[in-house]
Amino acid sequence: MSYPDILKIADKEFSSRLFLGTGKFSSSKLMRESILASKSDLVTVALKRVDSTLENDDILSGLPHPTINLLPNTSGVRNAKEAIFAAELAREALETNWVKLEIHPDPNYLLPDPIETLAATEALVKKGFVVMPYIHADPVLCKRLEDVGVQCVMPLGAPIGTNKGLKTFDFLEIIIEQSKVPVIVDAGIGAPSHAAAAMEMGADAVLVNTAIAVSNNPIQMAKAFKKSIEAGREAYLASLAPVKQNAEASSPLTSFLYD
Amino acid sequence: MSYPDILKIADKEFSSRLFLGTGKFSSSKLMRESILASKSDLVTVALKRVDSTLENDDILSGLPHPTINLLPNTSGVRNAKEAIFAAELAREALETNWVKLEIHPDPNYLLPDPIETLAATEALVKKGFVVMPYIHADPVLCKRLEDVGVQCVMPLGAPIGTNKGLKTFDFLEIIIEQSKVPVIVDAGIGAPSHAAAAMEMGADAVLVNTAIAVSNNPIQMAKAFKKSIEAGREAYLASLAPVKQNAEASSPLTSFLYD
Amino acid sequence: MSYPDILKIADKEFSSRLFLGTGKFSSSKLMRESILASKSDLVTVALKRVDSTLENDDILSGLPHPTINLLPNTSGVRNAKEAIFAAELAREALETNWVKLEIHPDPNYLLPDPIETLAATEALVKKGFVVMPYIHADPVLCKRLEDVGVQCVMPLGAPIGTNKGLKTFDFLEIIIEQSKVPVIVDAGIGAPSHAAAAMEMGADAVLVNTAIAVSNNPIQMAKAFKKSIEAGREAYLASLAPVKQNAEASSPLTSFLYD
Amino acid sequence: MSYPDILKIADKEFSSRLFLGTGKFSSSKLMRESILASKSDLVTVALKRVDSTLENDDILSGLPHPTINLLPNTSGVRNAKEAIFAAELAREALETNWVKLEIHPDPNYLLPDPIETLAATEALVKKGFVVMPYIHADPVLCKRLEDVGVQCVMPLGAPIGTNKGLKTFDFLEIIIEQSKVPVIVDAGIGAPSHAAAAMEMGADAVLVNTAIAVSNNPIQMAKAFKKSIEAGREAYLASLAPVKQNAEASSPLTSFLYD
Repeated sequence: MSYPDILKIADKEFSSRLFLGTGKFSSSKLMRESILASKSDLVTVALKRVDSTLENDDILSGLPHPTINLLPNTSGVRNAKEAIFAAELAREALETNWVKLEIHPDPNYLLPDPIETLAATEALVKKGFVVMPYIHADPVLCKRLEDVGVQCVMPLGAPIGTNKGLKTFDFLEIIIEQSKVPVIVDAGIGAPSHAAAAMEMGADAVLVNTAIAVSNNPIQMAKAFKKSIEAGREAYLASLAPVKQNAEASSPLTSFLYD
Repeated sequence: MSYPDILKIADKEFSSRLFLGTGKFSSSKLMRESILASKSDLVTVALKRVDSTLENDDILSGLPHPTINLLPNTSGVRNAKEAIFAAELAREALETNWVKLEIHPDPNYLLPDPIETLAATEALVKKGFVVMPYIHADPVLCKRLEDVGVQCVMPLGAPIGTNKGLKTFDFLEIIIEQSKVPVIVDAGIGAPSHAAAAMEMGADAVLVNTAIAVSNNPIQMAKAFKKSIEAGREAYLASLAPVKQNAEASSPLTSFLYD
Repeated sequence: MSYPDILKIADKEFSSRLFLGTGKFSSSKLMRESILASKSDLVTVALKRVDSTLENDDILSGLPHPTINLLPNTSGVRNAKEAIFAAELAREALETNWVKLEIHPDPNYLLPDPIETLAATEALVKKGFVVMPYIHADPVLCKRLEDVGVQCVMPLGAPIGTNKGLKTFDFLEIIIEQSKVPVIVDAGIGAPSHAAAAMEMGADAVLVNTAIAVSNNPIQMAKAFKKSIEAGREAYLASLAPVKQNAEASSPLTSFLYD
Repeated sequence: MSYPDILKIADKEFSSRLFLGTGKFSSSKLMRESILASKSDLVTVALKRVDSTLENDDILSGLPHPTINLLPNTSGVRNAKEAIFAAELAREALETNWVKLEIHPDPNYLLPDPIETLAATEALVKKGFVVMPYIHADPVLCKRLEDVGVQCVMPLGAPIGTNKGLKTFDFLEIIIEQSKVPVIVDAGIGAPSHAAAAMEMGADAVLVNTAIAVSNNPIQMAKAFKKSIEAGREAYLASLAPVKQNAEASSPLTSFLYD
């Protein structure tokens, strides 16, 4: 597009609407190359890994800092208290007041806890954090998070790592319609078509991890997601043709040669 | 992608996997610019329009012939006999032995007739045509069309002009699995995400018309479809991550700080 | 319902809208008890079995003839010629001019052949048969079958034995809207909810086999299908409430105690 | 079924798994007759109506008390405090410690508030109430409600009054798998097939209101829902046949007459 179409969250502007998770890649090299291929300028990293001393997982040294924002996530915490502590640790370690808040006491589906997430968000916002909360696609929770000063919401499409796509479609529609802050669809996005569909609905961005990381060719898959998200965004801006119940000829049918 | 990924139908190679219909555009100028923006190298045109003497609808003069193939369609015919006559007329007028075969006696949903389509295909192949038949997503019909020498099949996703997407998904899967000729999903594709999904399944190309022509911004929508089709193709080649029932953490969950 | 709601095909009336297939049951006893529990008055039987001399599969002797109609099917034939021969054989063996026409050259998905089915139907109708053709959910084919004198159509919901449900929903809707003969949804019905949905759309009957036969408790499953089909029919007659985009309170919301 | 299959919530047993809402009926007479036709033994009533002095809406006098339980709901409250007050009022008015907790600050989609619902549930359980909370299909929230002593959960299928069906299917599956208390699918159920599908998944009961009340024939629709819910329950107990990707013949295909 010739006109600028910039995503803004808090005080930061993002040229890409594809956010990337950094788990599950078979090597750090592949992870770095996939990130670069995706043109994403925001990647999440588990605080556990930041804290790690393992040489072969040094995500910090591997990334070109100036252009790509590292967003620590609190993956692994089970309540607000643990999340707040993790966020503060991350702020110190990474020198960022941004945090992706993930509170999932559920070990099987890793679904987020709405109560703890609201409590932690409220506390962290008061402490000066820019909070990006991973949540169920619950429109009321989204409004409550807005009320405590959240700068964006990250509703899930399907349980993490399932690649099922937009199983929460009807509720994402409501969230997007009502939200005053950017809506980033997180979790469950398993194919470029899913990401395009989220953007066509009016989502502001999409976070992808498993679908790229476990592909046979993560670099190519990263490029595919990049393109599909741009396609979905452009289609949203151009506005989709309406769905119709009856057919309409795209070729003129009137009075063919034989009438 | 760095490696070549060329679609070949009969003796022709196509660099783009997006085919375009030319109906419903609000002006010829917009149609031409949308075609160019799409980078498509195959556009269909209703024989009725070729035959037309109306100055303002002169699709032939408006297109850069060397790079874009004009594919006449038989839209408006109701049986094999009319279709064969139309194809011969088109061959003379456009100097091409390619024809998109559309036989739809049904005035409401414009769905194709399987019996007439097979009969016309068999006759036209014998007359030296390269036939691209528009059909219901019927896997057995596809095999029968192969048996009479068709060079590709064009199963529908949903009734023409409805923008409903891949409502024949389960049958397209079977067609793609079994087909020995290229499979081009035609009709019903209403959004870039639909086109991407078709390509992710392994379709060889997609034909789009209404979704681009009636958009608020056809040129931008054409670009969006181009990108989404490339994305879907690249994802297919890189192979999608499998859909799982249970969640899998993309961030490492083991032994967080508080255990 | 207090008013009569009778299904009529050709000259026969059916009190039940559940038709049953007889394959895959673990024993003839279980098959018979399931049929009786279902209250179906039309069951299909493969001609192969009629022809059989195996004592333990003697479906003919096991059924209470007066109340249940045996409908021979041509399962196993691959073209019109074989189908016509099979139908004539069945007419002689079972003393019925009714035949369920199944022509599926495809060994993997057992999908029906539209061309051979139309040809066989035309020939069999001329020979005095009441033909019940198993077909893809192809609305144009349905109209062509009507044109040659078919007395009902049996479009599929999904490939036989997959239990996937109404994967052809959008096309069944069109078929039901346009058909002048009863529409019986055949193949793919894997759960009572699928059968209910078919009836709610306005289908005239449903044929079920695998979903009952391979259940842990075929007799109970037969009863469940009976009830769900009655439920779907009654809901169709009472007309479903419309689907709405926005919520509407079912409880009165106006001026609660605290306003 | 010959064996007993009783739903138990707290200390009460229910012979029917269909719960009914009482809003939107065109007359009290029609409401009463529909309830009787449904054989439901639990119907919800908005506290506002209980409080009402309008003669023509006297739900209390109209129902045969001994066999049908009246469940007051808190529809119209916007937070925990209002809900608790409403529940106490209902307890006094109706002499029941059961309450259907509905807290929906959202005037457009009437979606429930997870935070207020958990807080109100905790307080009401401590006050001796049997709480039936209307919630989003959020598996983590369900576990938290269990932790504070809830006796059942009532996740929604779709926004109230939309008749969209089980739009939360993937999350209902998880809730049912994990729940230690009965799961009652509430809101969005628009057709008997939806109710059957919920029961087939293993839901313990279904609450229906709009789909019956606004039907052309509420009494018949009530009967249809009754049957479909029994069908779904019986199918669940008999266990559904598995969904398969490939077809399987239900009629024997081996060596037909022509091989």
